[in-house]
Amino acid sequence: MLQNATQVNNGVNVGALLDARQALTAAPEAARFKWRATTQWINGTHSRSTVSGFYGLGTEQSRKVEFKYDADHPEIFASEDHGATPVEFVLVGLASCLTAGIAAVAQHRKIQLRKVTATIEAGMNVQGILGIDADVRNGFDGIKVIYDIDADATKEEIAALVAQSQKRSAVFDIVTNPTDVAVEVR
Amino acid sequence: MLQNATQVNNGVNVGALLDARQALTAAPEAARFKWRATTQWINGTHSRSTVSGFYGLGTEQSRKVEFKYDADHPEIFASEDHGATPVEFVLVGLASCLTAGIAAVAQHRKIQLRKVTATIEAGMNVQGILGIDADVRNGFDGIKVIYDIDADATKEEIAALVAQSQKRSAVFDIVTNPTDVAVEVR
Repeated sequence: MLQNATQVNNGVNVGALLDARQALTAAPEAARFKWRATTQWINGTHSRSTVSGFYGLGTEQSRKVEFKYDADHPEIFASEDHGATPVEFVLVGLASCLTAGIAAVAQHRKIQLRKVTATIEAGMNVQGILGIDADVRNGFDGIKVIYDIDADATKEEIAALVAQSQKRSAVFDIVTNPTDVAVEVR
Repeated sequence: MLQNATQVNNGVNVGALLDARQALTAAPEAARFKWRATTQWINGTHSRSTVSGFYGLGTEQSRKVEFKYDADHPEIFASEDHGATPVEFVLVGLASCLTAGIAAVAQHRKIQLRKVTATIEAGMNVQGILGIDADVRNGFDGIKVIYDIDADATKEEIAALVAQSQKRSAVFDIVTNPTDVAVEVR
């Protein structure tokens, strides 16, 4: 495939995103999405979640495939390690959200990306979940994401890309700000 | 395999967890964990995350397998839907965390589980991430988890199981409370 060497292509259709922005400004109800998963307990700490349909643009949306994710605890917690631990899924969500944002912002700013790698690490004192110390939180005590980015841009332009991605990231917002969770038993 | 009909077995080794609680009360440094993922940008909004080693019990921990997770945006956002969206990974993390907790608490309380299904749904106004309205948050406007549980227990005992699981859930804490995230470019 011949490609114009001066044409930036990160594989993001920015035109479609700008069209969506315009359409959803005019039709705010269409911007209300509902994301879903269904989780089936298998055994012990092992479960299997299915991600498939969602609601958006005013209607139910289906996918060509169902995504299945096994989650479990690792062997050092006397579990069988059938999948990532639940907290690791949160890290996958955060790093993939920021990374998709970097690609979209780079496309919009006509910056060609060559390689983007995120290394994400979160500290957690398990005295919280084990109920040893009520003053220790159950979740992470902090998260650090380090980006390694090779792109046709200056160091400052790359830093600005990453900053803009954080500003528009859904998962960054979810992790850094509180969200109400209602849990019910049918 | 013959099994004593009166013996509760949800596949959770509660004895090992209680031993861990005792050991980590005496050795608080061993309770400091670090969970990690590495995320590689593929193209467009598509990335691949790898979850493998972590740090805990005072040392680096390895796994027999590496878990790989593709994330992407769906086709209605002009993407290619190579995996769940980042926000759906958060839902998988939350529902699998609560579900593992239900199994562990049930085992501790000698309640036999037969079937546990969680249906999780989160609302999100995409006017936030599209930058249409600065007053709309990027993340979820709320999450609802509905449990359907078949177990040898009363309705009240089942409700108490679910409540205790929330109280000790790492991901429930991460989603309902703020966590600091530092993003750096190398």
